[in-house]
Amino acid sequence: MNIQKVLIANRGEIAVRIIRACRELGISTVAVYSEPDRDSLHVRLADEAYCIGPTASKDSYLNFTNIMSVATLTECDAVHPGYGFLAENADFAEICGSCNIIFIGPSPEAITRMGDKAVAKDTMKQAGVPVIPGSDGLVDDVEEAMLLGREIGYPIIIKATAGGGGKGIRIAEDEESLVKQITAAQQEAQKAFGNAGVYLEKYLTGMKHVEIQIIADNHGNVVHLGERDCSVQRRRQKLVEEAPCSVLTPDIRQAMGEAAVRAALAVNYSGAGTLEFLLGADGQFYFMEMNTRIQVEHPVTEMVTGVDLIKEMISVAEGNPLSFTQEDIVINGWSIECRINAEDPAKNFMPSPGKIGFYLPPGGLGVRVDSAAYPGGTISPFYDSMIAKLIVWAPTRQEAIFKMKRALGEFAIEGIHTTIPFHQKLLEHPVFLDGHFDIKFLEENEI
Amino acid sequence: MNIQKVLIANRGEIAVRIIRACRELGISTVAVYSEPDRDSLHVRLADEAYCIGPTASKDSYLNFTNIMSVATLTECDAVHPGYGFLAENADFAEICGSCNIIFIGPSPEAITRMGDKAVAKDTMKQAGVPVIPGSDGLVDDVEEAMLLGREIGYPIIIKATAGGGGKGIRIAEDEESLVKQITAAQQEAQKAFGNAGVYLEKYLTGMKHVEIQIIADNHGNVVHLGERDCSVQRRRQKLVEEAPCSVLTPDIRQAMGEAAVRAALAVNYSGAGTLEFLLGADGQFYFMEMNTRIQVEHPVTEMVTGVDLIKEMISVAEGNPLSFTQEDIVINGWSIECRINAEDPAKNFMPSPGKIGFYLPPGGLGVRVDSAAYPGGTISPFYDSMIAKLIVWAPTRQEAIFKMKRALGEFAIEGIHTTIPFHQKLLEHPVFLDGHFDIKFLEENEI
Repeated sequence: MNIQKVLIANRGEIAVRIIRACRELGISTVAVYSEPDRDSLHVRLADEAYCIGPTASKDSYLNFTNIMSVATLTECDAVHPGYGFLAENADFAEICGSCNIIFIGPSPEAITRMGDKAVAKDTMKQAGVPVIPGSDGLVDDVEEAMLLGREIGYPIIIKATAGGGGKGIRIAEDEESLVKQITAAQQEAQKAFGNAGVYLEKYLTGMKHVEIQIIADNHGNVVHLGERDCSVQRRRQKLVEEAPCSVLTPDIRQAMGEAAVRAALAVNYSGAGTLEFLLGADGQFYFMEMNTRIQVEHPVTEMVTGVDLIKEMISVAEGNPLSFTQEDIVINGWSIECRINAEDPAKNFMPSPGKIGFYLPPGGLGVRVDSAAYPGGTISPFYDSMIAKLIVWAPTRQEAIFKMKRALGEFAIEGIHTTIPFHQKLLEHPVFLDGHFDIKFLEENEI
Repeated sequence: MNIQKVLIANRGEIAVRIIRACRELGISTVAVYSEPDRDSLHVRLADEAYCIGPTASKDSYLNFTNIMSVATLTECDAVHPGYGFLAENADFAEICGSCNIIFIGPSPEAITRMGDKAVAKDTMKQAGVPVIPGSDGLVDDVEEAMLLGREIGYPIIIKATAGGGGKGIRIAEDEESLVKQITAAQQEAQKAFGNAGVYLEKYLTGMKHVEIQIIADNHGNVVHLGERDCSVQRRRQKLVEEAPCSVLTPDIRQAMGEAAVRAALAVNYSGAGTLEFLLGADGQFYFMEMNTRIQVEHPVTEMVTGVDLIKEMISVAEGNPLSFTQEDIVINGWSIECRINAEDPAKNFMPSPGKIGFYLPPGGLGVRVDSAAYPGGTISPFYDSMIAKLIVWAPTRQEAIFKMKRALGEFAIEGIHTTIPFHQKLLEHPVFLDGHFDIKFLEENEI
């Protein structure tokens, strides 16, 4: 079927990104917004827009009832969840289906299986995807944890099975530390995610965060679109992403891509998804988790492959086969994304909401800006602090870095603090320039 | 040698374009500006900026003495002229050379030979490049014109040898009209260009304006980078350009490319240049003129080839060989450029200078904006009315058209009138959509 009208169950730059793709496909768009987001760019750009509740996300962007009411009343035939909010909520995907509205994403079953980290790990192991050595499944009590700890070897990482995105994680350097933390971790997980399940993993060091973008249709086709290096992280939040990854050899790239395709096939995946791996200096890689949605950093993959991932998500949601095969995917040049946050890098990245004054994004060849910011617009204190993604493309990594420096220097955002100065310093750092940074890079280096 | 510092002898978007390329190459930039351009974006973005005179171009942007003084005093080792102003002024190129400053462009000799249209045509004919049937060289008097007219056949076009860019052109439908106009044309040419020479050409109909981008180094290498279809013209001014051209077959593309390379070799060309051709529905093409500079519409070629033409111009000016060979050039996807002018399409494209209020250029995948506009900026009544170039890329022409429509709809420029509504209507026109428009398209169709 042809999708005629899409409700975008999100805000900010990703809502704008999806509206753009829909408009280019001739699809009508319905925006939803919380009360403080009334003047947001996604509201201005959509064909229709409806308020779905007050400030708190649980009352607005997570409000199933109101969102489904708008979708039904405006006769939308599909919902795009973006990332965050309801993007990995199997119940929401289920409700969409029961209302006869297409959820632009994978099946509720695939979301559920990948959302439970212990189940996901087990599924991956069975699919022949390398996983981090650890407990096979959940750890019941302190005694079991101690025995497993001796088997796996320290340091060990304790993860909540219902966690994700770096949340619900503790590290044990030795047995004493493990014993101390295991019960607390379970209690914390119960409180944070409504699920007390935790599991153990070997805590690997010197690792890069390298992820593989895949996209799948409902006809059994899965294609991988190369990797992204997302190792530049602060408190487990990605700040800079690039494609391809400096240290990946063609052999490892192929092995990771094939593992990602096996992973997607194992859960009958459909839509865009990402397999996140840890990659060691020895070329060994280990499955961390699968994000069953579009990711913040998807643009760098679009820049080096020429594929519009949002359009392709919509197309496969319509029931079409993928518009390309694995052989069609060629990685061309280099792309880097800097996440520009409304934070003050001089004050330990303290949020800096407020009203934007003068605003002029950079332009020219190889520069892409995905943002919902505009002159006079308000950066809300209530939601994510990311206000723009600055993405560049150039034939080589070095040229891309110079282009990013040029574009950051040109990006004018007055009235609030942003992380632009942080990115400018990062792009001068010898470890970043040489490409051999790992996920501890920002912890271990002063930027 | 490595160029360290470049003076940009221009204003507006092309000055910004060149500053961006220089910055990405680590080259310092010196902007020059006329008094009313004091707050222009190129002034703000350059490392240094100097006023070179009052409003009138002859006193500022064409003021050799002041520009060369700034170049010398700031120790620039090169000048980039952009397009217009001094870009095709052989005397200026000569003076740069005599001051030991690199003119980023071809030799004064190449500029001179291609600047004299009759000499250029003769040179092309000798190089085996097809030319429009007409007088071989200048026409001396009415008697000679009449004899030639009978030989060539009507309608006939009278062109000033020193003209260019559509200036100094008259059309004679029959012998009577030719006799009437020839002396007037000579007098007008003398007045406008300081050169009374005119020549005759067969006035061809149903033709497309298709041009070939070439770039050459000082080591005898010339590469062509495919074509641009610039047939959407109003009063001989290009409004929309695209690459590739819908109607071009691979065979004709190759023949035109090879002719363009022969043309460049015939004048020992160096730098970026464009061979403009008329292309008939029968696939026959005829040399019109060569532009010995970067052109307004160069971005569409950059988008489909991945080559940064300004960087490559700088590199060959430094004496480097071209960084690619003919075999490296692959045309990928489709690119369209709309020239956004500060004009009111509802009032016969009357200029609409003034102060910009709210300003937000479109963003996202495949959208490029080359502009010197900014919120609160002033569009001067004294210079060219083009305020932004909106360039899109997509895998196919149809997708590029939809992307352009999306981007035009998003482009917010308040406070002045622009040609955005004209472009929006054009992109709905069946003749434009089908791709088989010729240079008379806008004359013959109501947009």
